[in-house]
Amino acid sequence: MAEKQEKKEVGITAEKDDFSEWFSQLMLKADLADYTEVSGCIVFKPTAYSMWEKIREEVDKRFKKLGIKNCYFPLLIPEKFLTMEKEHVEGFSPEVAWVTQAGDSKLNERLAVRPTSETIMYPSYSKWIRSYRDLPLKYNQWNNVVRWEFKHPVPFMRTREFLWNELHTVLATEKEAIMEGKEVIDAYIDVVENIMALYGKYGRKTEREKFAGGVFSEKLHYVMPNGKVAEGPCFHHDGQNFAKAYDIKFIDKDKTEKYAWQNTYAITTRMLGVMFAIHSDDKGLILPPRIAPNPIVIVPIFREENAKKVLAEAEKIKKSLKNYEVLLDDREGYTPGFKFNDYEMKGIPLRIEIGEKDIEKDQAVLVRRDNLTKKAVKLKDIEKEAEKILNEMQKSMLEKSKKLFESKVKKGKSLAELKKIIEDKMMGVVPLCKEEKCEETLKFETKGAKALFISDEDKVKQEKCIMCGKKADYFVYVGKTY
Amino acid sequence: MAEKQEKKEVGITAEKDDFSEWFSQLMLKADLADYTEVSGCIVFKPTAYSMWEKIREEVDKRFKKLGIKNCYFPLLIPEKFLTMEKEHVEGFSPEVAWVTQAGDSKLNERLAVRPTSETIMYPSYSKWIRSYRDLPLKYNQWNNVVRWEFKHPVPFMRTREFLWNELHTVLATEKEAIMEGKEVIDAYIDVVENIMALYGKYGRKTEREKFAGGVFSEKLHYVMPNGKVAEGPCFHHDGQNFAKAYDIKFIDKDKTEKYAWQNTYAITTRMLGVMFAIHSDDKGLILPPRIAPNPIVIVPIFREENAKKVLAEAEKIKKSLKNYEVLLDDREGYTPGFKFNDYEMKGIPLRIEIGEKDIEKDQAVLVRRDNLTKKAVKLKDIEKEAEKILNEMQKSMLEKSKKLFESKVKKGKSLAELKKIIEDKMMGVVPLCKEEKCEETLKFETKGAKALFISDEDKVKQEKCIMCGKKADYFVYVGKTY
Repeated sequence: MAEKQEKKEVGITAEKDDFSEWFSQLMLKADLADYTEVSGCIVFKPTAYSMWEKIREEVDKRFKKLGIKNCYFPLLIPEKFLTMEKEHVEGFSPEVAWVTQAGDSKLNERLAVRPTSETIMYPSYSKWIRSYRDLPLKYNQWNNVVRWEFKHPVPFMRTREFLWNELHTVLATEKEAIMEGKEVIDAYIDVVENIMALYGKYGRKTEREKFAGGVFSEKLHYVMPNGKVAEGPCFHHDGQNFAKAYDIKFIDKDKTEKYAWQNTYAITTRMLGVMFAIHSDDKGLILPPRIAPNPIVIVPIFREENAKKVLAEAEKIKKSLKNYEVLLDDREGYTPGFKFNDYEMKGIPLRIEIGEKDIEKDQAVLVRRDNLTKKAVKLKDIEKEAEKILNEMQKSMLEKSKKLFESKVKKGKSLAELKKIIEDKMMGVVPLCKEEKCEETLKFETKGAKALFISDEDKVKQEKCIMCGKKADYFVYVGKTY
Repeated sequence: MAEKQEKKEVGITAEKDDFSEWFSQLMLKADLADYTEVSGCIVFKPTAYSMWEKIREEVDKRFKKLGIKNCYFPLLIPEKFLTMEKEHVEGFSPEVAWVTQAGDSKLNERLAVRPTSETIMYPSYSKWIRSYRDLPLKYNQWNNVVRWEFKHPVPFMRTREFLWNELHTVLATEKEAIMEGKEVIDAYIDVVENIMALYGKYGRKTEREKFAGGVFSEKLHYVMPNGKVAEGPCFHHDGQNFAKAYDIKFIDKDKTEKYAWQNTYAITTRMLGVMFAIHSDDKGLILPPRIAPNPIVIVPIFREENAKKVLAEAEKIKKSLKNYEVLLDDREGYTPGFKFNDYEMKGIPLRIEIGEKDIEKDQAVLVRRDNLTKKAVKLKDIEKEAEKILNEMQKSMLEKSKKLFESKVKKGKSLAELKKIIEDKMMGVVPLCKEEKCEETLKFETKGAKALFISDEDKVKQEKCIMCGKKADYFVYVGKTY
């Protein structure tokens, strides 16, 4: 009891069930981010930021194979550009931050801080694209965007400024555009599942929830421990809508002039929040080995008189683990217990403890962060064993994330059932018709839940829409979102 | 003559002497960037942007060894933060872009689009730093900044939005701060000289030209072909000025509370412009091999009937050059001559030509972009020879850049001499005193030249200030800048 008390004081004092307090403490105590005086904006501290760099690197590697190139367009967008696609501007203008002054001068035209870059990129695309030889054009940006939302901000999950990639491609045919969609989404899924160990479900948005100005939108969806749904990487197929608004035409092989087809894709820093929230526990952060900046920490247990001997052995272990970025904590003045708690808080996947007694037994103790299992391992086997544990942990975290998702899904046959499901902090799968009105009423009746995506697996037969009672068009996942 | 004419039409139609027209054409025709309708802002196209990514990667690698960590702070800075350090705000406020509205609402407090991030980072530093154990703190950001200058914009060289790193460190003592300055600048010099092949001169700014709010500033300086000087990577020593304004204090080992010491460093996308301008020629871009996205291009020379044979050999050569990102241009419908010109325009360091006659002779022809020398090389020797040529080219480009710099420096003993030097599009080195008034008059008299940096090599003895005639304090490099 006394021990638990001590841990609690340095650790997180909220249970994971009290999600928003727990998440805020996790962010601060695991040194991931901090609040700022800029309302709704956070500082990404080095640990969190380095994981964003890793995501960027992994996505870039896969994008490169798909012929996608990185570039950079201006942050500030003249108002006249923003308003060229009607639905698009209606979707974004309520949350645009406007630059109206420079120094002491009032600007002639307001400039939007980009909420997304279609409206600044497409006028250039229109200029650059002349012939089928210029297609496909696949330009990507990693940048910052600002959306001055007035909903309650949540670190990582909903911030007024966030970081993302925005990939905007132009293709000659609809068929190519649809095929590309699959390739790019597969690249995202590969990164999210195999690096971040997160299971999400991919599906198409309803008309009401699609991207403003596009033809259809598809996204990955993740369930947080509090039952709220976070939207992840997305694919918006724009058809020829923007091409018509921004005059993106090309002379095709058949010598006729055609409007081009366009797609847009993104992954954002929100995924960091999803990862921190889904994997972590009351002791702090748990990081998937493949994204952890330091997958292994060595904590030597020593006193002044045996320091040299123990530290030498710890160094030897570090050297043997040359394939990993290993942290060796040889600081004096901190107890091993303090260090254990600290690295548990920071989520380092594997801790290696080594003291004089271990050396006598020719062993070290390996502690796996997610399940806290301990294992004494012969010194010569550490490298092999560490690799095995880290691989198992990576795999097990993805499986656990899948189980979490599945445990939060429940079918409902009526509005009453759906309301109960939402109250129980889960997602409902219900039959619905295409009428926007039904989605609006659903949102009102469930106090804010919305249609997330159309189910691929559940096909409607004779089911009725739970809102209007007419024939349902599809099964839809419904939940509250960030 | 006819051949030259043909080349000119697809190529740059201005001579390098007509610098601004030449530079603008180079940017567009080598596909580096494009103008946008956002006044003073450009699109960084993939070739240029990938070189910026390379710079970032190389700087990061060196920064990591110095214990520097990347992070990310908000783009928008509340006005009250910006105004906390008096000299700093006076320096930047004339060119701040202000966000005053969000959606339809007027904000209660204006938000500055960061022109630099001291004023948003230091309030957080003040919160985070408590003890000497928290020091040194070395946080770096790679981000975008906006400075709404009203001078004539020049692509890469002076744009209203640019990309940079800003490294802001906090140290316990002045001595450590000064030592760190040398380490970081050495890292920048290493990247600029050995990757970008650019020679610059490092020196301390006069009081008048130092960073607003700092104690002293030191920068690298590069001379453009038109004699204008571009300021490169910089080191600003802030002393305790910002620590006092933002209350950054720590309890030292001796248990007393002290203000911290701070430094700031940056390298910007301007360096891309410097690199493009200094190395290139009337045929187009010349890229140093170590930064070129594709250091080698293979151009097979084939007709329909021997295509298979020639392309197979070209593929073999590509495979043998596995240490390089090699481009193999097997497109039909373009003549070899067109391709040669195109890759000369795009600055690819080494071109390998291979046709049927070459195959018969068991050779290929290697063409080095900077001096256009051609060399027939036995197929088996290509890998070794390519490496040798690329290394020589990299070295030679740095040497040439050094010679250019030295050719643009001339000592002057009087204002009249200095005026002549500036008219001749060179830098003058003249004795000057510390009075700000003298620098102001100098700028007026020379129609805009300014004190660049204090010479390290030229020591004053009895020299008089060329402006006021009183005892000079130092020799100063003087020139016009971007």
